[in-house]
Amino acid sequence: MEKIKGGLETVKGYSFSSLECGIRYDNRLDYTIISADNFCNAAGVFTTNKIYAAPVKICRERINNSIKAIIINSTNANACTGSKGYENAAAITRDISEKLDVKPENILMASTGIIGRQLPLEKMIKSHNRLIKGLSSANGDSVARAIMTTDTVPKYCAVKFTCAQKEYTMAGVAKGSGMIAPDMATLLSFIITDAPVSKEDLNRIFKEKIETTYNSITIDGDTSTNDTAIILAPISDEPLKNDSDIKNFSQALEFLLSDLAEKLMFDGEGVSKVVKINVSSARNKKDANLIAKSVSRSLLVKTAIFGNDPNWGRIACAAGYSGAEIEEDLLTIMIEDKALFKKGETLDVNYTDLEEILKRNSYSINIDIGLGSGHSSIFTSDLSYEYVKINAEYST
Amino acid sequence: MEKIKGGLETVKGYSFSSLECGIRYDNRLDYTIISADNFCNAAGVFTTNKIYAAPVKICRERINNSIKAIIINSTNANACTGSKGYENAAAITRDISEKLDVKPENILMASTGIIGRQLPLEKMIKSHNRLIKGLSSANGDSVARAIMTTDTVPKYCAVKFTCAQKEYTMAGVAKGSGMIAPDMATLLSFIITDAPVSKEDLNRIFKEKIETTYNSITIDGDTSTNDTAIILAPISDEPLKNDSDIKNFSQALEFLLSDLAEKLMFDGEGVSKVVKINVSSARNKKDANLIAKSVSRSLLVKTAIFGNDPNWGRIACAAGYSGAEIEEDLLTIMIEDKALFKKGETLDVNYTDLEEILKRNSYSINIDIGLGSGHSSIFTSDLSYEYVKINAEYST
Repeated sequence: MEKIKGGLETVKGYSFSSLECGIRYDNRLDYTIISADNFCNAAGVFTTNKIYAAPVKICRERINNSIKAIIINSTNANACTGSKGYENAAAITRDISEKLDVKPENILMASTGIIGRQLPLEKMIKSHNRLIKGLSSANGDSVARAIMTTDTVPKYCAVKFTCAQKEYTMAGVAKGSGMIAPDMATLLSFIITDAPVSKEDLNRIFKEKIETTYNSITIDGDTSTNDTAIILAPISDEPLKNDSDIKNFSQALEFLLSDLAEKLMFDGEGVSKVVKINVSSARNKKDANLIAKSVSRSLLVKTAIFGNDPNWGRIACAAGYSGAEIEEDLLTIMIEDKALFKKGETLDVNYTDLEEILKRNSYSINIDIGLGSGHSSIFTSDLSYEYVKINAEYST
Repeated sequence: MEKIKGGLETVKGYSFSSLECGIRYDNRLDYTIISADNFCNAAGVFTTNKIYAAPVKICRERINNSIKAIIINSTNANACTGSKGYENAAAITRDISEKLDVKPENILMASTGIIGRQLPLEKMIKSHNRLIKGLSSANGDSVARAIMTTDTVPKYCAVKFTCAQKEYTMAGVAKGSGMIAPDMATLLSFIITDAPVSKEDLNRIFKEKIETTYNSITIDGDTSTNDTAIILAPISDEPLKNDSDIKNFSQALEFLLSDLAEKLMFDGEGVSKVVKINVSSARNKKDANLIAKSVSRSLLVKTAIFGNDPNWGRIACAAGYSGAEIEEDLLTIMIEDKALFKKGETLDVNYTDLEEILKRNSYSINIDIGLGSGHSSIFTSDLSYEYVKINAEYST
């Protein structure tokens, strides 16, 4: 497996088109389509939020169908828009399906942007001829740009890998937004490949790899109304089957998702540092998750990270109120390999050594609970002035 | 019942003393004592954090004893300090008890400040003669000042009330810090009264009134390592007993705690606005709490409050990922009495009317779930540049 230059355009069998539809703003790329030359198997992971957008409903209904295209808009989430929002999404996918000469159920949709506003249906339908006309296998980079909201850079990645002596390609795009862990890191991500994989394998592998990549940055249950990750792979009579091929495919997918997850984190709103919270030896997996989540969400921890402050007391405190079993006498807190608090004892640490680590744009906080074998890792970010600025000013 | 001027010094039967001990900083009032002329009944509510400070352990062990004095220090939390931290707290209370000619178990202690550092025991013990010598019934205001950390103003309140034709007084002090809801609003509060109340009544009423006041701003379970609220009332052979007296006492306590809670909120770090999140018609009380907590914690909601942005989509989203049962079609979101989203429909709202409310330093967000009869209210604050500044720079 090898990382290659470029994005979606490196994968054979797909074409792309994007345009400035004027959905919410003029002169902004806000509408895009990924179209497969032939029908694809699809797998998807969607928000667990009980309030979810109309396009998520559409995707949930259709994800097991044979898929021809995904249509995506930014600047309007089509969430909290009731039955009219759903009808609009259905009308858009119906019109696209007619123009691609397939059925509506072969089209998926995703949206991101402001909540609670209806899509400008007429304007969007009107743009479809132009959108379809623009389809080209060379337009992959425009998809990464059209799905951006407060993202500062387009995020894409492509890899080559070999299965049964044949070379395949896989590429993906992603948009983040919001802060990385916690709260609503509205995530859209679309992965395409020319490797034929059965629906069952695709579904299983995608869910497994999302868990250790995107779901370790957005944190289960704290997802936005629109979070959507979809993978497309061509339907074939002879899908990749044997263990080593499936393994190569899985590795390529994991590499791709990890790469995009890292890009999402570093492009988080106002993020200047990304810190990995590793919890080990918790009573069990659930407790490890509770602690990692609690520490990664703590505003006091996040502001300390921003301020280069090795304030392990805030870490201990957030671990203590996480709800997990924890005993002060067994607890150890380290920044990278430097222990600050070891089994209940505060250690004298050379601040100069620590400072070198704290000033990095990425490091790990390692929390050993000393009670069992549960472990969990979550990436979090600092809380900066910039974050407040972006989120106080964005929107309505 | 009537609010009166002044603080602790208005209550007969107690004396106070504070000094600059130099616990962490020079020239800072950081050590104080509340001493009762006669033994008191006490009731206390303490942090639910599994990592809790040595003085909290001391208080838990002694709260049911007859209490003579409470000794309090700021600038050092004596948390995560292991057995030595506990021995230090025990030694301090032992020395104070000797100087007051009572037993160690008659003395309570509370601390606030940095986590993970040992108290300067010798220095503190050395100051005790001076501290005890300074005891005066007129020194009440010094207690409110000595317990402050990042608080900008001392917080105190006093009320007069009548039971069985006799006039009594009750007064309290509190220190906040951290942001109001969520995270660690380290809370210390001490209430004294000259009204004799039995240990059982004192305990029951104090816990009940804390629930609707302090616990609605700090949020259950997200307490710091040191949160401590204690009330003292004189032991008497004839405590207040009849229903109307107990009712008057309860009302006075509720008024006092509410007043202090409000002062805590408005003095929260970087707080420019306090917003009450009211959740009604949730499936049950537990769901109502989950939703109120989720919305009040959301960084996106808090930055929207800071930015005067009526971004109800962020409110819907935070309610949706709270874990509570929720249906978009039944959900209504209002700012004060102005509905923005009503049973699944986005409403057109005159932004000028809204702006007038959003610019206030206090208003309510009302969320009707439409599913049952559970309700819950939590006060939250905005997330400002100032908060990030204070918490990135405070500490280590």
